[in-house]
Amino acid sequence: MDREQLAALLAAVQSGTCPVDEALLRLRTMPYEDLGFAKIDHHRALRNGFPEVVLGEGKRAEQVIAIAERMAATGGNVLITRLDAVAAERLRAAVPGFAYHDVPRLAVRRARPVKIVGRGTVLVVSAGTADLPVAEEAAVVAEMMGNTVDRLYDVGVAGLHRLLEQRDRLWAAAVLIVVAGMEGALPSVVGGLVERPVIAVPTSVGYGTSLGGLAALLGMLNTCAAGVVVVNIDNGFGAAAAASRMNRDSA
Amino acid sequence: MDREQLAALLAAVQSGTCPVDEALLRLRTMPYEDLGFAKIDHHRALRNGFPEVVLGEGKRAEQVIAIAERMAATGGNVLITRLDAVAAERLRAAVPGFAYHDVPRLAVRRARPVKIVGRGTVLVVSAGTADLPVAEEAAVVAEMMGNTVDRLYDVGVAGLHRLLEQRDRLWAAAVLIVVAGMEGALPSVVGGLVERPVIAVPTSVGYGTSLGGLAALLGMLNTCAAGVVVVNIDNGFGAAAAASRMNRDSA
Amino acid sequence: MDREQLAALLAAVQSGTCPVDEALLRLRTMPYEDLGFAKIDHHRALRNGFPEVVLGEGKRAEQVIAIAERMAATGGNVLITRLDAVAAERLRAAVPGFAYHDVPRLAVRRARPVKIVGRGTVLVVSAGTADLPVAEEAAVVAEMMGNTVDRLYDVGVAGLHRLLEQRDRLWAAAVLIVVAGMEGALPSVVGGLVERPVIAVPTSVGYGTSLGGLAALLGMLNTCAAGVVVVNIDNGFGAAAAASRMNRDSA
Amino acid sequence: MDREQLAALLAAVQSGTCPVDEALLRLRTMPYEDLGFAKIDHHRALRNGFPEVVLGEGKRAEQVIAIAERMAATGGNVLITRLDAVAAERLRAAVPGFAYHDVPRLAVRRARPVKIVGRGTVLVVSAGTADLPVAEEAAVVAEMMGNTVDRLYDVGVAGLHRLLEQRDRLWAAAVLIVVAGMEGALPSVVGGLVERPVIAVPTSVGYGTSLGGLAALLGMLNTCAAGVVVVNIDNGFGAAAAASRMNRDSA
Amino acid sequence: MDREQLAALLAAVQSGTCPVDEALLRLRTMPYEDLGFAKIDHHRALRNGFPEVVLGEGKRAEQVIAIAERMAATGGNVLITRLDAVAAERLRAAVPGFAYHDVPRLAVRRARPVKIVGRGTVLVVSAGTADLPVAEEAAVVAEMMGNTVDRLYDVGVAGLHRLLEQRDRLWAAAVLIVVAGMEGALPSVVGGLVERPVIAVPTSVGYGTSLGGLAALLGMLNTCAAGVVVVNIDNGFGAAAAASRMNRDSA
Amino acid sequence: MDREQLAALLAAVQSGTCPVDEALLRLRTMPYEDLGFAKIDHHRALRNGFPEVVLGEGKRAEQVIAIAERMAATGGNVLITRLDAVAAERLRAAVPGFAYHDVPRLAVRRARPVKIVGRGTVLVVSAGTADLPVAEEAAVVAEMMGNTVDRLYDVGVAGLHRLLEQRDRLWAAAVLIVVAGMEGALPSVVGGLVERPVIAVPTSVGYGTSLGGLAALLGMLNTCAAGVVVVNIDNGFGAAAAASRMNRDSA
Amino acid sequence: MDREQLAALLAAVQSGTCPVDEALLRLRTMPYEDLGFAKIDHHRALRNGFPEVVLGEGKRAEQVIAIAERMAATGGNVLITRLDAVAAERLRAAVPGFAYHDVPRLAVRRARPVKIVGRGTVLVVSAGTADLPVAEEAAVVAEMMGNTVDRLYDVGVAGLHRLLEQRDRLWAAAVLIVVAGMEGALPSVVGGLVERPVIAVPTSVGYGTSLGGLAALLGMLNTCAAGVVVVNIDNGFGAAAAASRMNRDSA
Amino acid sequence: MDREQLAALLAAVQSGTCPVDEALLRLRTMPYEDLGFAKIDHHRALRNGFPEVVLGEGKRAEQVIAIAERMAATGGNVLITRLDAVAAERLRAAVPGFAYHDVPRLAVRRARPVKIVGRGTVLVVSAGTADLPVAEEAAVVAEMMGNTVDRLYDVGVAGLHRLLEQRDRLWAAAVLIVVAGMEGALPSVVGGLVERPVIAVPTSVGYGTSLGGLAALLGMLNTCAAGVVVVNIDNGFGAAAAASRMNRDSA
Repeated sequence: MDREQLAALLAAVQSGTCPVDEALLRLRTMPYEDLGFAKIDHHRALRNGFPEVVLGEGKRAEQVIAIAERMAATGGNVLITRLDAVAAERLRAAVPGFAYHDVPRLAVRRARPVKIVGRGTVLVVSAGTADLPVAEEAAVVAEMMGNTVDRLYDVGVAGLHRLLEQRDRLWAAAVLIVVAGMEGALPSVVGGLVERPVIAVPTSVGYGTSLGGLAALLGMLNTCAAGVVVVNIDNGFGAAAAASRMNRDSA
Repeated sequence: MDREQLAALLAAVQSGTCPVDEALLRLRTMPYEDLGFAKIDHHRALRNGFPEVVLGEGKRAEQVIAIAERMAATGGNVLITRLDAVAAERLRAAVPGFAYHDVPRLAVRRARPVKIVGRGTVLVVSAGTADLPVAEEAAVVAEMMGNTVDRLYDVGVAGLHRLLEQRDRLWAAAVLIVVAGMEGALPSVVGGLVERPVIAVPTSVGYGTSLGGLAALLGMLNTCAAGVVVVNIDNGFGAAAAASRMNRDSA
Repeated sequence: MDREQLAALLAAVQSGTCPVDEALLRLRTMPYEDLGFAKIDHHRALRNGFPEVVLGEGKRAEQVIAIAERMAATGGNVLITRLDAVAAERLRAAVPGFAYHDVPRLAVRRARPVKIVGRGTVLVVSAGTADLPVAEEAAVVAEMMGNTVDRLYDVGVAGLHRLLEQRDRLWAAAVLIVVAGMEGALPSVVGGLVERPVIAVPTSVGYGTSLGGLAALLGMLNTCAAGVVVVNIDNGFGAAAAASRMNRDSA
Repeated sequence: MDREQLAALLAAVQSGTCPVDEALLRLRTMPYEDLGFAKIDHHRALRNGFPEVVLGEGKRAEQVIAIAERMAATGGNVLITRLDAVAAERLRAAVPGFAYHDVPRLAVRRARPVKIVGRGTVLVVSAGTADLPVAEEAAVVAEMMGNTVDRLYDVGVAGLHRLLEQRDRLWAAAVLIVVAGMEGALPSVVGGLVERPVIAVPTSVGYGTSLGGLAALLGMLNTCAAGVVVVNIDNGFGAAAAASRMNRDSA
Repeated sequence: MDREQLAALLAAVQSGTCPVDEALLRLRTMPYEDLGFAKIDHHRALRNGFPEVVLGEGKRAEQVIAIAERMAATGGNVLITRLDAVAAERLRAAVPGFAYHDVPRLAVRRARPVKIVGRGTVLVVSAGTADLPVAEEAAVVAEMMGNTVDRLYDVGVAGLHRLLEQRDRLWAAAVLIVVAGMEGALPSVVGGLVERPVIAVPTSVGYGTSLGGLAALLGMLNTCAAGVVVVNIDNGFGAAAAASRMNRDSA
Repeated sequence: MDREQLAALLAAVQSGTCPVDEALLRLRTMPYEDLGFAKIDHHRALRNGFPEVVLGEGKRAEQVIAIAERMAATGGNVLITRLDAVAAERLRAAVPGFAYHDVPRLAVRRARPVKIVGRGTVLVVSAGTADLPVAEEAAVVAEMMGNTVDRLYDVGVAGLHRLLEQRDRLWAAAVLIVVAGMEGALPSVVGGLVERPVIAVPTSVGYGTSLGGLAALLGMLNTCAAGVVVVNIDNGFGAAAAASRMNRDSA
Repeated sequence: MDREQLAALLAAVQSGTCPVDEALLRLRTMPYEDLGFAKIDHHRALRNGFPEVVLGEGKRAEQVIAIAERMAATGGNVLITRLDAVAAERLRAAVPGFAYHDVPRLAVRRARPVKIVGRGTVLVVSAGTADLPVAEEAAVVAEMMGNTVDRLYDVGVAGLHRLLEQRDRLWAAAVLIVVAGMEGALPSVVGGLVERPVIAVPTSVGYGTSLGGLAALLGMLNTCAAGVVVVNIDNGFGAAAAASRMNRDSA
Repeated sequence: MDREQLAALLAAVQSGTCPVDEALLRLRTMPYEDLGFAKIDHHRALRNGFPEVVLGEGKRAEQVIAIAERMAATGGNVLITRLDAVAAERLRAAVPGFAYHDVPRLAVRRARPVKIVGRGTVLVVSAGTADLPVAEEAAVVAEMMGNTVDRLYDVGVAGLHRLLEQRDRLWAAAVLIVVAGMEGALPSVVGGLVERPVIAVPTSVGYGTSLGGLAALLGMLNTCAAGVVVVNIDNGFGAAAAASRMNRDSA
């Protein structure tokens, strides 16, 4: 279903020819654009105002560019995650309108202003300076998905007073994303301090028995704070997407 | 802080002697009841209407009973998870008012009617019949925490039509808890069908390379559906607690 | 046994001096060409029309070239897998007739047209764009082994409608190779939709807990779809060889 | 869709009211019988003559019995895997017609003679005496699924002459299921001797570093014999189901 | 070297015949009592007033009894760790003077009053009620080794106020043993609050991804609190021995 | 080939009809006795005077008895490893002549005196009392295979003087089997003290991070003593078989 | 709290306005300097004379420099661990006063003479030459933290006489740090020879099954020498911090 | 003890002043040369004619050179393992007399002819071409240690006839080193064909689930061929040292 078909469908809804229910069903299952090596679902972004998203890792620069071109053509916002600096340079040369955040390795195309749709603030908390790339991925993606974002960094559990002094900001958040490497204990502590949803993000920060983030992940899965949930190691993007699901009113 | 102290505090709030903010702060950090081998935080339950919760696993029957007695004395609801049938029998003999759910191994004391505080329905979805104990733990706990709960069982991905026929129930839920063992693929499929929060619960159902649920857990952590979050293996309780965090208005 | 010996044997069969059974036995166990560091079995390829195959990985370029030269000398087709671009360049300079597929890192020498010996179509299905190198290895190798090959790419389970729309192509295949990284759920879904053999290929696509493809592998081994079989991570070649075994009439 | 509905559908096909294509589509996606805790797909068995199958492990005896009753009511064959002897006793008392194989822990109800639909023989090869339960699960299930089955047991690679003497039986098979614990080397050797599909089944036989069958599984996944495929540890059932997919003409 | 030889040696020191240095060397390397299946070093206990220690786990009851008899014969204190209740009953019947602590599974023979040799207090801190067996093993063993012991139990990180209220007791300790299962975060928090040695003891309390205590262990090894040290899972004995090494003046 | 055939063959050798080389070849590859579920190679034992060996673990008592009966019928010695006490009782009732060693769980039938064929002494060294079952399995098996065996037990590395005092016995051995659990350090120390072959046997003695003997195994594989070799965890039998290979003159 | 505030506090103590206890409390919990991406706790170093410490790994050079500048401004000593040579070069150009130790990859700024506060000598023992970077990290850090340090290198257990000859130095130490890779057996041997605290540091030295130091770590955690404690792989810094905690009088 | 001291000792033996036993004891425990970062045991090589050996991996080039210089000064043969080409170049420039084998990465200094001291032939068998570096390390080291060495390469189990044709060479060997990656099945097959010692060497050849050689290692440890022993992954050196221990007459 291309944009014309979509426009026709919406016109039919407007005129009453097509009932809302039927249109909704068609929109949820309508086709995609097929590039052969990739199939792009424009409708999800069109429907909910989200940016279109590409996982840059594991794709060749020319594949990323081809997909980004098609997405840019729809006029919406585009977000490319885990894109290295070299590929980002090639992308920016090929498709106008992209900015590159080098710490979280995100390429972002803001074609339209982002509309705030979240009910409250998403607070991104991180344990150490080395967790910044993941924390920033979560923060920037959450912003692009229509959330108000606050940041609280370098408040690891070995210096508890740093965190406790910021209790008010913890209590003010609607959803919390807590990013930590090494032993991954911060979400347990935060989860015990607040009653709102807490999304734990383990990072690969550490060495030796950190096992590339597995130690932090296991710590978070075994949290003694009831109701803390977890995403994959270094998955700041996934945490932001989850926070957006939680921070929105029902679709 | 015992119940009298609590009453006094609340009276002070009522009379205006103690400002709400100060009372809130005291409530969040007030002391606990100390049994020597255990310290009980009654205030959390008192404040938010939640049941008081005990993890039965790893505790001796006499410890469970001692804690349950103190909790029952407050007059609130009590929930004891992962309690085997033998210990449950002893508990019921010692402390009146407990019912025992043998599939999810839950002892429940409903001293007060549970007030529905969740904004929408929590839907518990499970992949197979063997996942029932975990799914039921999630469902009963979510009910006890004030949520309306719906159940959709035995809809694993190898028989996709069973799931797709129930799309309406998936779309109607405010929060989804998706329980699966073996390859743990169901949350990815559900996460692609809905836009609401999806909490994936891996179970230890399986054999050989299921590795006691690690295969399902890894599948869920690596989901290609953006924004699916995960809890520990067999942790139906944690999923329900997380769903309650998500399904409530800000505290 | 060199080519002359082979010719003599076949002549003996033709003339009736050597019974077919005895010739078959000798062919199955006849010697190989010995390069010292490698021993080459030409007869397998001669007998069944398969290409001669070399695993490029772990061999030095000069070793690959020496083996490829001896194979090319037999006049049959040659397939070199997991060969990096630099070694491929050296190979092409040293031994004429090789083409290089850079996505699947395959060097292919088509000295003879490939005869279709498979009974039906081998369909290669992949979950994401990043799985392409493995999917293409499977597809090209399956073609070289005498199968008609169809491709269906980027139909991961988080966007189920993409896959379901192609049900006819799934049902039309004689053997299916299903390639997926991350949670590796696609083979379970496909295995539930078709009744033909399904070969699952986990890829190392992913990060963190994907553990270099182990998460996908475990998912596939624990599939709830009865009768799905699995090969090593990233082993597109092995999947194609297995599909060829399944797609042929008994030897 | 119950049996009457099915009969009506088939009558419609016969009379030409319903085109074959449409009937096929309905049959593939028609509903199931819902027991609440389980959903039973009778149509798969009805359509292809397969037995209906239940995984006994992880289900309570009363659940197994309830499902078995519904399946027996359709008049088809029923196969219950991984059922312990105690549950089998209760099943046999509750639902008439079941025989119990104690080595492979299979309960089998042969209501109708099994029709041979496989093109050739499925040969089950095992490495040691302790692998028998898994080998027999594969053999009995393959028979129930309509295959002619041959058995070749206790031919592990440390006594190679035992295997080599049986080369004719290896060559005569259409599909081979090779069962081995410990180092799991047998499928590599068999895979090098035959050109037909080889399904490797690791078993949990062994101790110490066998790691419950992981050593054997890893050995099989890393086989140097091209085209050997693998199923989960101890998964004789899955191997038989895979062999049946391979041994049948296209559906 | 038996007790007479030892007495003779000490007499020689007293009389000046044997220089202190030489006596010290002989004492450090003198022989042991040989039971065939076990060799007992009495001199270590004789020299430093420690109890003699036997690891009960993995030994048959008759072996434990035989060793305990020989140790009791020296008239010193004896400590048997990880002894199950049945073996303890047999031991108490065979060798007089043993008391049995069933929570930490310790058999203790106090033949002489324990002399306090530690410079300060050893504080045993535990996260949850289920950690009690390990915490008590550490506490009782530390007492038997001549330390003043204090206990602070059930102060896990999800209820931080319980711990923070006890800061004075944390600061008063000379050495801290911190026992925790699940995510094992407590030693990081304690290690950030105090400057004295902190010995972290992971326990096997937990389920699923706690992996029998590995999650807690990894958390402790990756602590962000500088200078926290770790012992094996459930090794309360080892923690007490380490604390004794730290709490004593140089030998 | 049954015993008569074997006798005929040997007669032919004696008379000169059959050259020694040909007889040797036939003996190495001659057939076995087939019980259906097991195939017994009598010739190996007949040829080299070894006992016939059965791995008891994983076999049913009736299978063990059936095999033992056939072996006893040949009149040679028989060794059944890893046989539990209950099965041993049934075996002794069914097949006369078996003695049972309960520590190493070995059933032994000494029909003929064992002839010493080893060149020197095999010394079995063990680290702790709990390692005895494995050490004794190695010692008894080595004796049954024709070696002179010496034992040196409970000489773990934490009490080095116990080991160093026995240096002469270490230096006198032709082959050393070193058995240790926990950290598995003893073979490194022994390997540095002697120049003869050292076979390291890790045991599953330990808890927590001993991981069922994996810690000891890894320690032994990473030994800094050049030329120490390793067998599977708890594999006393394998160590004895290896020692016998090393202690014999070439076959 | 900046330096002026700190000075005022101390003046208040001096004048008697502020009681010592209250000042101590404020010092323990006083604020930090906030750089946005990092929060610096100057007070810990100010209070106990320790250097301020930064973990270089995982931080960008510009972040390290920014932090180092702020620390240098306090006039105390600064220690930056795990800093690669390139970043060290940039640091030295930007912030004067740093020396770089390339073996342990430490940047050290000695603004003030280090005052010896430890009661005895910290002895760093290492098993092999390749363990030097970790051993030197421990040694240099321990010196910077006010300990007298002695070194004993290349005394692995395969050449025991090297170690035993140095028994006097082992016995003379107040705290021992024992560094070893491969099988990690050295701490067990040393722990059996001395009665003072032994801190085991596994290193990632080794290959294959050393698993990046896990083999050594497991060996150390499973030590049979009672009271040996362990830190993370390659964590020379942590060992030195732990040794300092043990070697000081109570704070 | 330097060379002069050694000469004096031997002269004393010759003259009868020093009994042989005492000289032997002194030789076994005599001191070493101390370079600070390394301690060199010359006597082992002097005594048994072995080369002096250095593990190059993990050492800096300047450390390797310093050690090699000291060793060369003794006039004996020197062997440096796991030395990369760049360091080898520097070594050859600094210390004359070294040859470099680039496949096994060995630097060898043959100052004296190697005397054959082994009783029979050491046969190195390898499974594939990619295993050559490890196989050659074993072969060259075994030669340097005084063994006659034979090589049999590229005889993996998927082409069994290649191996079986060489049975005579297998039977002729006194000790066999069997090198294999991937599934590591070759030692099981060889171990079943011969009765002499078999040393299995797993290699890191493979990908995906080969897990850097762990799959091959596990296969070898779980071998069904009694008496096969194993060394660390890629440890050709260790295999050669073990073979030398086995191939020599008692010291």
